Amino acid sequence: MGMTMTQKILAAHAGLEVVKAGELIQADLDLVLGNDITTPVAVKEFEKIGVKEVFDKKKVAIVPDHFTPNKDIKTAEQCKMIREFAHEKEVENYFEVGEMGIEHGLIPEKGLVVPGDVVIGADSHTCTYGALGAFSTGIGSTDMAAGMATGKCWFKVPSAIKFVLKGKPSKWVSGKDIILHIIGMIGVDGALYKSMEFVGEGVSNLSMDDRFAMANMAIEAGGKNGIFMVDDKTLAYVKEHSSKDYTIYTADEDAEYDNVYEIDLSAVRPTIAFPHLPDNTRTIDEVGDVKIDQVVIGSCTNGRIEDLRVAAEILKDKKVAKGLRVIVFPVTQKVYLQALQEGLIETFIKANVVVSTPTCGPCLGGHMGILAKGERAIATTNRNFVGRMGHPESEVYLASPAVAAASALTGKISNPEDIA
Amino acid sequence: MGMTMTQKILAAHAGLEVVKAGELIQADLDLVLGNDITTPVAVKEFEKIGVKEVFDKKKVAIVPDHFTPNKDIKTAEQCKMIREFAHEKEVENYFEVGEMGIEHGLIPEKGLVVPGDVVIGADSHTCTYGALGAFSTGIGSTDMAAGMATGKCWFKVPSAIKFVLKGKPSKWVSGKDIILHIIGMIGVDGALYKSMEFVGEGVSNLSMDDRFAMANMAIEAGGKNGIFMVDDKTLAYVKEHSSKDYTIYTADEDAEYDNVYEIDLSAVRPTIAFPHLPDNTRTIDEVGDVKIDQVVIGSCTNGRIEDLRVAAEILKDKKVAKGLRVIVFPVTQKVYLQALQEGLIETFIKANVVVSTPTCGPCLGGHMGILAKGERAIATTNRNFVGRMGHPESEVYLASPAVAAASALTGKISNPEDIA
Repeated sequence: MGMTMTQKILAAHAGLEVVKAGELIQADLDLVLGNDITTPVAVKEFEKIGVKEVFDKKKVAIVPDHFTPNKDIKTAEQCKMIREFAHEKEVENYFEVGEMGIEHGLIPEKGLVVPGDVVIGADSHTCTYGALGAFSTGIGSTDMAAGMATGKCWFKVPSAIKFVLKGKPSKWVSGKDIILHIIGMIGVDGALYKSMEFVGEGVSNLSMDDRFAMANMAIEAGGKNGIFMVDDKTLAYVKEHSSKDYTIYTADEDAEYDNVYEIDLSAVRPTIAFPHLPDNTRTIDEVGDVKIDQVVIGSCTNGRIEDLRVAAEILKDKKVAKGLRVIVFPVTQKVYLQALQEGLIETFIKANVVVSTPTCGPCLGGHMGILAKGERAIATTNRNFVGRMGHPESEVYLASPAVAAASALTGKISNPEDIA
Repeated sequence: MGMTMTQKILAAHAGLEVVKAGELIQADLDLVLGNDITTPVAVKEFEKIGVKEVFDKKKVAIVPDHFTPNKDIKTAEQCKMIREFAHEKEVENYFEVGEMGIEHGLIPEKGLVVPGDVVIGADSHTCTYGALGAFSTGIGSTDMAAGMATGKCWFKVPSAIKFVLKGKPSKWVSGKDIILHIIGMIGVDGALYKSMEFVGEGVSNLSMDDRFAMANMAIEAGGKNGIFMVDDKTLAYVKEHSSKDYTIYTADEDAEYDNVYEIDLSAVRPTIAFPHLPDNTRTIDEVGDVKIDQVVIGSCTNGRIEDLRVAAEILKDKKVAKGLRVIVFPVTQKVYLQALQEGLIETFIKANVVVSTPTCGPCLGGHMGILAKGERAIATTNRNFVGRMGHPESEVYLASPAVAAASALTGKISNPEDIA
């Protein structure tokens, strides 16, 4: 029996010829990541372990992105602690606000992940880097501590679901719609502890930004990781961003999958996840009349340059609906600069959009756009759990940048096909 | 005995020929202002009064700027309350995030204050509009409620201090340095309940942005208001921004002043207020070696276009000091757009500066850049009281945008004359 993409990467990093689903293995890590919420806990655990240095100063990344610029004294203290830790341990990839962005936008942009890598991050959306053909998964702060100390992590080898992508999505359908469609189909536990492997000729019709958005949300179907086959677009991205060596892993022809789904991308409609789970999806044709109070465009899921381009295309020379709060968060300073140079930021400001510095902000109910009781937001973020963006009686509707921007113009959930 | 500028404005608005310092009068209001912190209290008081409508839908302004975009559920609820109040009472000058900015930048920009007006605002820095030759002062939420209900407010007529400005400030000296110099000279209670009237040929050498910064900080010397004589620059500003009728009031020749100070602007040095009071000033030549952790450029004091131009001139093609957090807050969306079109925002992003949407943010320890224990910030804001920007053991140094930007490059308080 052959191995899946993920299994092959794990086997190679465990020094084993073969691994099987369910087996416990210890794998070498190419990157250990933490943010300002999870790293403080990891630092305390690291100190208990008693080693003096991190295993590799180049292979630890710390990104204060959740409550930054510091929201309050508590978060300021947390950031101070991890800043001092990074300084003391000479962590090379500590990124201060101003030179940074949201971790899952920043890490690939900085070339810190390449195909074939094994990455752990103390943040559930670490699965994002699977877009690059890497094994990448979210872990807890204790595993982060152990990873920083030893450069290794224990994994139970996951089984896998194969998604064979075919065809080409229509103009206003993006990776976000496709992954929401998939999560709606298999459910929020549909891939529990499994790899979601994306292959097929349709992959070539997805940009890297589409793939990042899709891999990012693998965890929303319960997936251990999401991973894309490597193609020319992947390699072009890697060439542009990284000087690291990489290895391309392809699933064996006889690899075993728990399920295989064929997805016709040309049939996917703009898709929205209604409250309060990412699998509570409806197509744009089924949404009905849903008035909104706030629009959030950005986050580690959809704050990349293509996302901002689509939003700006829809908002250009228009104003957002009166009384609506519309907030755009570029995922990194680099994306912010590019959006600036392409005139997208000017389009947003002229449209009465709030443009924020990169921060996780409202996505996790952190700051910069929290909802009051009874308020509704449409957001390009990744989770719409009860109270995710604020009050327990507020609501979050997950959508693509195109749907979010179209909705910004009308004040209700709207179809970009009708507007642009 | 003649009247001061302020006394003449108050007399006219009280329907009296003459008023005298110490007299209690009731004056008609041209504008009643509130923000997201003070308006919720005012709304409750307004409801107790029992009137159904505000006295004039055009003469009430509500600007949610302090904890916006909403910092947390509590502030989201406060904003929701004032939004609903503004909607119900048909308040014409309610400004939602995205179409707004910090109140004291926004109100003049929207043309809501002109020379000769009487303005009250439930925010201590309402004195800013004195730059336009208006009487403008901060009041509490209860007075705001009464003002919204009746269009009137009781005042004790203030006595005054006259500042006769002479000469021209040197290149890196701005209105901020001048007002810090003055506060250092007279103390934080030096103008307690008095008008600070700025006159003299030196006024013509100050831009409107200089004047806004100076009038803004009148309260930091305890002043009831700060007010500038009206000149061609004032009228050009009014013509550009407002269609309201205005009246120019000039002090009588025999007006009585408690003190008269002559200030030679050409002799004012870049000036910094050390912790923990705005009158604890030193010139740049006296500061010594003060390392900093954060730089804040913006706020209702110094977030205007000239402030951003000066900062960008110093930061152009450079990077901020490694490890420093540098945050720029344009005062309004209009200033943000102008800065964008002039290339200033690009300069900031390339220099690793955080560019925030307009919000009061860290100035009052609200959000977006709060200090941890032991941290130091240099800020173009207006107050450096204990704990103002975060932890009670943090420190704030008040300075001009030029000094702040020069310090951003070095990581310690620095002289723009040495750098630019």
